[in-house]
Amino acid sequence: MTEQAIDLRVPGFRAGAVACGLKPSGKPDLGLVVADAPCAAAGLFTTNRFAGANIPVCREHLGGPIRALLVHAGQANACTGAAGTKVALSSCEAVAQRIGAAPNEVVVGSTGVIGVLPDITKIRAGIAKVELHDGGIAEVGRAMMTTDLVPKSARATLKIGGSKVTVAGIAKGSGMIQPHMATMLSYVFTDARVPRALLRRAMAWSVERSFNSLTVDGDMSTSDMAVTMASGVAGNAALKATDKDFLKLRDALGEVCTELARAVARDGEGATRLVTVTVRDAATESDARTVARAIANSNLVKCAIFGRDPNWGRIACAVGTTDARFDPAKVSIRIGEHPVFAAGAPTKVDKTAVSAYMKDNAELTIEVRLGAGKESASVYTCDLTDGYVRINADYTT
Amino acid sequence: MTEQAIDLRVPGFRAGAVACGLKPSGKPDLGLVVADAPCAAAGLFTTNRFAGANIPVCREHLGGPIRALLVHAGQANACTGAAGTKVALSSCEAVAQRIGAAPNEVVVGSTGVIGVLPDITKIRAGIAKVELHDGGIAEVGRAMMTTDLVPKSARATLKIGGSKVTVAGIAKGSGMIQPHMATMLSYVFTDARVPRALLRRAMAWSVERSFNSLTVDGDMSTSDMAVTMASGVAGNAALKATDKDFLKLRDALGEVCTELARAVARDGEGATRLVTVTVRDAATESDARTVARAIANSNLVKCAIFGRDPNWGRIACAVGTTDARFDPAKVSIRIGEHPVFAAGAPTKVDKTAVSAYMKDNAELTIEVRLGAGKESASVYTCDLTDGYVRINADYTT
Repeated sequence: MTEQAIDLRVPGFRAGAVACGLKPSGKPDLGLVVADAPCAAAGLFTTNRFAGANIPVCREHLGGPIRALLVHAGQANACTGAAGTKVALSSCEAVAQRIGAAPNEVVVGSTGVIGVLPDITKIRAGIAKVELHDGGIAEVGRAMMTTDLVPKSARATLKIGGSKVTVAGIAKGSGMIQPHMATMLSYVFTDARVPRALLRRAMAWSVERSFNSLTVDGDMSTSDMAVTMASGVAGNAALKATDKDFLKLRDALGEVCTELARAVARDGEGATRLVTVTVRDAATESDARTVARAIANSNLVKCAIFGRDPNWGRIACAVGTTDARFDPAKVSIRIGEHPVFAAGAPTKVDKTAVSAYMKDNAELTIEVRLGAGKESASVYTCDLTDGYVRINADYTT
Repeated sequence: MTEQAIDLRVPGFRAGAVACGLKPSGKPDLGLVVADAPCAAAGLFTTNRFAGANIPVCREHLGGPIRALLVHAGQANACTGAAGTKVALSSCEAVAQRIGAAPNEVVVGSTGVIGVLPDITKIRAGIAKVELHDGGIAEVGRAMMTTDLVPKSARATLKIGGSKVTVAGIAKGSGMIQPHMATMLSYVFTDARVPRALLRRAMAWSVERSFNSLTVDGDMSTSDMAVTMASGVAGNAALKATDKDFLKLRDALGEVCTELARAVARDGEGATRLVTVTVRDAATESDARTVARAIANSNLVKCAIFGRDPNWGRIACAVGTTDARFDPAKVSIRIGEHPVFAAGAPTKVDKTAVSAYMKDNAELTIEVRLGAGKESASVYTCDLTDGYVRINADYTT
């Protein structure tokens, strides 16, 4: 896998990263993104009840405008008790002091081993030392990597009236990834001028179709968060919920989030294949997503993909575990362009050809038609490999 | 792993197995258990909507007494359309003809690759050829193995009044195992005299605490079934729901089912450790089971066990994904006898000692105390290994 070289500069934001000693490897492990002025911001967080100590702090701070985002990697600051909350609050204070903001204008992301307290002295030193500049968002993307092999970033531009608007984001994550709330860490920045309520709405829509439609291993992290900040310096005309321009911005945000989500699946721990599972002809979009998730979360389906084995019976089996509306006799399945199951019975497909498709392509598609309506949804996943097992058996506490 | 040598003879039943060519390996693949007279019987089945063609047939036949159980392995007869239903019905007819019973007095189990039709000509030949004898139930247990490394069997005896009663069972399964309805194939025979309604009640109770408390990979099979038959030849006094003797029989059935479930987890595909996850101090038994299942289904927890890594953060994380009633600040976790997390914060445990415990024992325990009540439940699972991935990547369609 090679790193993407994307211009992540967004007017109104400066950023940078530094190695402050949280990662044993000595690699950069602390990133800071600072807006020139308070931003409209929105966040979605893990629903895990052992959520990291920083999560409730972020939730509270996102009730108002945000000036800065801090992220550190190495220790997740989850299951760390009252000491963890102190670290999260002190981190916000240190950032606020450096940039001349209020502590509640800062959000903080944390990733790494659960149950180990990050060292606040190191974090403070990192905050003091990090150099902020226009091109720094990419550095932050690298600093927050843990088992990731590559940093993930995505960018879209659009016009709102006469104003050019940029949306750019970074994400990290390759294990403990499942479709339930802002999976992993993802930060998206835009210079659009957009009220907080609309930004929240656009973010919720985008996350449902991207990070919440992503699964590597079905494990929901304690630290998942997706935050977006809008500097407003693009100076576009004010947006309303009924504007076409708002939908354009929402779609651009969705595009960036989906690209990031796909990048996370592609870089899933031990993954050798990016798999897009699309369910069509469902009674509702929710039914479609439920079925797609059941397939994408099946260890057996994912092992079969690793084996380049067109074992469609496991796909049907996963479909059958759901309560989505369908008649089994109307269900059809394709692997790539190959129909393997049609109207509830096996087809006479050439299995060698399907296996060759699975061998020859790094990105695979599985399509299920439920024959129950007109709605559809896609979920992104990867195969389950011995590499995944080795990484997670050896990743030390 | 070595095979258990248990006496599985149950008065009133004869059984046998034969190789009829369904398994490419040429090993025994068809088993038949015949009762001397019609039996009270009860069954629980997969809730998968692509259930095998035999499942609705069994459900219907279990509305009345049962004379025989047929089981064949190699092809699961699931996702096989109308042709599959024909095979299931014809199999029942062939058994009925051989033993002089009605076709609806026969139940049939089927396991193997999904989406491939078993050859009814071979099944018929097998039914005609199989030799029935007192000690044949163990042979049936071997004939229904697929990726199983060892056959699984269990036995209990009890006294009801002056009568000696035997309960003996067999099970197969090592992948596509998850805690939702009669997981895998399990057949339990007893000579107790017990009305069908009570047998059903005892079976539902036992299955919830055994096969439904078992998970290997979270994948629900199309073919899962658990059937019990009672010949009644022990001649015990008639049982009533309020009898202590009924509870004794229920407990014996539960004991046999739990032993079989643990044997399935121990023989989980690629497994190196049998893990019993027990959740205590829960508000309800259902809460306890929900939390235990979340832990036992976590790929990350299971990989950590394979790595002998006391990564308790992943256990806490799995607990946190549930909606069971608890206050995170009151939760404690033990691995074996080692407290690793107490009252919501890490302990100062010696991780080397915990890792040594995980290295030195083939059977491990994880205990979580929720601090929310007095109820408890156990779930049985195994570790997730590169062996599991290799088996399921290579298991061919």
